[in-house]
Amino acid sequence: MSRGNRPKRGRRAAPSPAVRQPPFRRLAIPYPVYEIASADEVESIHQASLDVLEEIGINFLLDEARDILAAAGAEVTPGETRVRFDRDMVEAAVAKAPATFKAYARNPAHDLEFGGNAINFGLVSSPPNASDLEGGRRTGNFADFQDFIRLGQAVNAIHLIGGYPVEPVDLHPAIRHLEAERAVIRLTDKIAAGYCLGRERIRDSIEMARIARGVDAERLVSEPSIFTVVNANSPLQYDAPMLLGIIEMARHGQPVTITPFTLSGAMAPVTVAGALVQQNAEALAGIAFAQLVRPGAPVLYGGFTSNVDMKSGAPAFGTPEYAKAVLIGGQLAQRCGVPYRSSNVNASNAPDAQSAYESQMSLWPCLLAHANLVKHAAGWLEGGLSASFEKVVIDAEMLGMVGAFLDPVAVGEGDLALSAMREVGPGGHFFGCAHTLERYETAFYAPLLSDWRNFETWEEAGKVDATWRAHALYKRLLAEYEPPPLDEGIAEELDDYVDRRIAEGGIKTDFGGPGKGSRA
Amino acid sequence: MSRGNRPKRGRRAAPSPAVRQPPFRRLAIPYPVYEIASADEVESIHQASLDVLEEIGINFLLDEARDILAAAGAEVTPGETRVRFDRDMVEAAVAKAPATFKAYARNPAHDLEFGGNAINFGLVSSPPNASDLEGGRRTGNFADFQDFIRLGQAVNAIHLIGGYPVEPVDLHPAIRHLEAERAVIRLTDKIAAGYCLGRERIRDSIEMARIARGVDAERLVSEPSIFTVVNANSPLQYDAPMLLGIIEMARHGQPVTITPFTLSGAMAPVTVAGALVQQNAEALAGIAFAQLVRPGAPVLYGGFTSNVDMKSGAPAFGTPEYAKAVLIGGQLAQRCGVPYRSSNVNASNAPDAQSAYESQMSLWPCLLAHANLVKHAAGWLEGGLSASFEKVVIDAEMLGMVGAFLDPVAVGEGDLALSAMREVGPGGHFFGCAHTLERYETAFYAPLLSDWRNFETWEEAGKVDATWRAHALYKRLLAEYEPPPLDEGIAEELDDYVDRRIAEGGIKTDFGGPGKGSRA
Repeated sequence: MSRGNRPKRGRRAAPSPAVRQPPFRRLAIPYPVYEIASADEVESIHQASLDVLEEIGINFLLDEARDILAAAGAEVTPGETRVRFDRDMVEAAVAKAPATFKAYARNPAHDLEFGGNAINFGLVSSPPNASDLEGGRRTGNFADFQDFIRLGQAVNAIHLIGGYPVEPVDLHPAIRHLEAERAVIRLTDKIAAGYCLGRERIRDSIEMARIARGVDAERLVSEPSIFTVVNANSPLQYDAPMLLGIIEMARHGQPVTITPFTLSGAMAPVTVAGALVQQNAEALAGIAFAQLVRPGAPVLYGGFTSNVDMKSGAPAFGTPEYAKAVLIGGQLAQRCGVPYRSSNVNASNAPDAQSAYESQMSLWPCLLAHANLVKHAAGWLEGGLSASFEKVVIDAEMLGMVGAFLDPVAVGEGDLALSAMREVGPGGHFFGCAHTLERYETAFYAPLLSDWRNFETWEEAGKVDATWRAHALYKRLLAEYEPPPLDEGIAEELDDYVDRRIAEGGIKTDFGGPGKGSRA
Repeated sequence: MSRGNRPKRGRRAAPSPAVRQPPFRRLAIPYPVYEIASADEVESIHQASLDVLEEIGINFLLDEARDILAAAGAEVTPGETRVRFDRDMVEAAVAKAPATFKAYARNPAHDLEFGGNAINFGLVSSPPNASDLEGGRRTGNFADFQDFIRLGQAVNAIHLIGGYPVEPVDLHPAIRHLEAERAVIRLTDKIAAGYCLGRERIRDSIEMARIARGVDAERLVSEPSIFTVVNANSPLQYDAPMLLGIIEMARHGQPVTITPFTLSGAMAPVTVAGALVQQNAEALAGIAFAQLVRPGAPVLYGGFTSNVDMKSGAPAFGTPEYAKAVLIGGQLAQRCGVPYRSSNVNASNAPDAQSAYESQMSLWPCLLAHANLVKHAAGWLEGGLSASFEKVVIDAEMLGMVGAFLDPVAVGEGDLALSAMREVGPGGHFFGCAHTLERYETAFYAPLLSDWRNFETWEEAGKVDATWRAHALYKRLLAEYEPPPLDEGIAEELDDYVDRRIAEGGIKTDFGGPGKGSRA
């Protein structure tokens, strides 16, 4: 953790104004998809994936899943977990997935679109540790969990809660999802996610999402209100908890992000193309399975291909290989006609310059690929092993800049500004001219975190670097946080449900199969 | 300056291996230009620029320049500095500029191409201050100047020296260019730049470049060997030193980068489109003027449009507006058929997370726009008021990642890796398979600065953040630096020339007109 550049305490006396940030808004990308692979190259990868599914196949570690697949015509051998797929069957099943869908928040102002040119940013999810500059790195806990959710609500650049921002290990696993998701519903009115850790858990999550939205079970099926991520257990395998999650979510009409965990050189081939072939094979199998459970079930195609450090085997993120995989992954998702999920990632151990440039090596490809869901968009650190409070703020600035970049340059007569140039003429300046005065207040993106004061002023103010400024800002955002209103009847129904389930003892923590839950 | 995370001195005992970095190589972008404005929108801006040149005109603050313009048919009124241009005349003159050209280093391995899909990275140039974590910020001086040049030579990701990396103010202005450029020729065999500060100075620079290359004056004219940057004195004005620079450089066949200094809201309109109209008008006027001096003279279209902080008037860099201006600026340069110059910029006061994310908000647009020359690619800080030793290394990592990103993903049979997936099968791993063993050593970009060790190892090693690691790396690069070989005859001729000119007193430091030299 950085110990330098900490603001001097004595300077904090004056009350700070409210943190200034752009308003919450849904983002759409007005620019084209950036294609770094030709259509032929994308087709080569896609067809190789279908070869993998036909010839090598995928392990489905759940009898119920293999029964569904066998009934749909996949090649299933009794007593064996390996399932092979005819390419036409896969393509026909994937074609049933919707190209776009709307997701519903408990506050309609926070509803989101997925697919097309929409881009949505999710709060960090699933790290086992939390960190900030003052408290250092600590095991995930419910207090930090709640503070991250508060930040997710307070930061307007964050569109949704992608999962547990940090694992609250001080909540017993049998009741963790109940307490954690109740807290999420109370602390934020943005869309959130549950975890596929067996049938009972995800059913609880879906029921709590239904209660939070105040709708009946039938309406919930047509109104996606809770997300989940299913990681393939790469290579070429889906475990029982994940498959039960797909089954339950698809049956309830709730979106599943199918995300192979294809680290090139470890769980996937050492070539980017090979890792993408495997990613695509696993994604197609998962998406097809969801469509066999319930045709038309909303899904996202998740890309998470990165590479390992070949010296140590450690995962690396925000690398050049990652950037290329995100871009071609987007082309593959578009080939499938399914919304695309990617991530804002880095492998830095501190919220420092490395964390920023690796994140940008992720964010630009996400934008250029038209990723509809950018998971871990704010707060991810250490390749996902820590959620960082300062990184939430650093990322919020980067996300705000992306949002402003997506406002296209207007070229109407007033924008071209010939009148201003006539008025000012050669050698003048534009500070006071009418054209400037009419526009200056909203002309440019106003930063949340960046310090544009001159060196002398910055030095006099204590030389506070971006990471320590982010520290102060996250504290201010928490101090200013106000919980969103929650209907009393809903709050009561939610408490009744959660309290009853806790009284019942929650769920069996041995959920009937291998699997550690989705981390990506 | 960051005071935290400094490596403990006791840990430095073991000798370090040589700094590992990818080799020097010329880069070409295999991916398309990313167009965020439509052809119609680009044409609207271009035509508005021609309106500016016809109707408002540009001040040319040099009689000799106005004589050249009048002779070519521009509208010049005796006794007035304002010159107006017929649009057809401007377009005809600009059309004479070469779309591509080669530039020659004194080491042919460092020759470069400009235009098309080539991208070249230049060392920081022109800040008045130097800084590093230990020494803090200090006024530019010749010792730091030489260390920066050594880094420019040592860092393979840097293709050329864009100017003085920091102003060596301890050299008297009358002889500064002589001593400074002699040092550049001795310390690096990469292409470098001189300054347009009047006729005598730039003639000295051209002559020294000729000597360094060991060619005669005639051959120099057909072999660009030294660059310069000419900033318009925006809005709509060129001063005498700049115009003399264009005249001398064009007559000698040496490339001029015509870069309007169009800060939106200050020296240019407050709208991005308006600032681009002005940038384009000024660039077209400068490029046309160079072509009138000598048809076919190599030029670059320089884009430097950014915005100011409307609260303080301070310039901001690496903003969303900057990103859009870089991209549309590239489209305008391509409309002119002239190589494009842009920059890797930021406004941070420290080599921290802000400096990294603002740089990435510059670098990605440079790459996407096919900027052929990226000035300030390594070491710029504080909006150009400081050259930072640590930022050179942080940028070198980012440039290395860009270079690796430009290697397209291969999709041959071996790359698609079906054999590896057959060998490994579901549930296995790829660490030891034949496909991996054949490729792992060169499969991925190996970082210069990024630390991918796990948190515990990083913590045990002293929690050194990226900025302090960059500090250690720049020191190691300087310790390992070796001057490139220089032919003895050339060294002698260079010394004869420089010593004679110094003995003559150098140049008059009042060079006959307003102007402070190009800062951008």
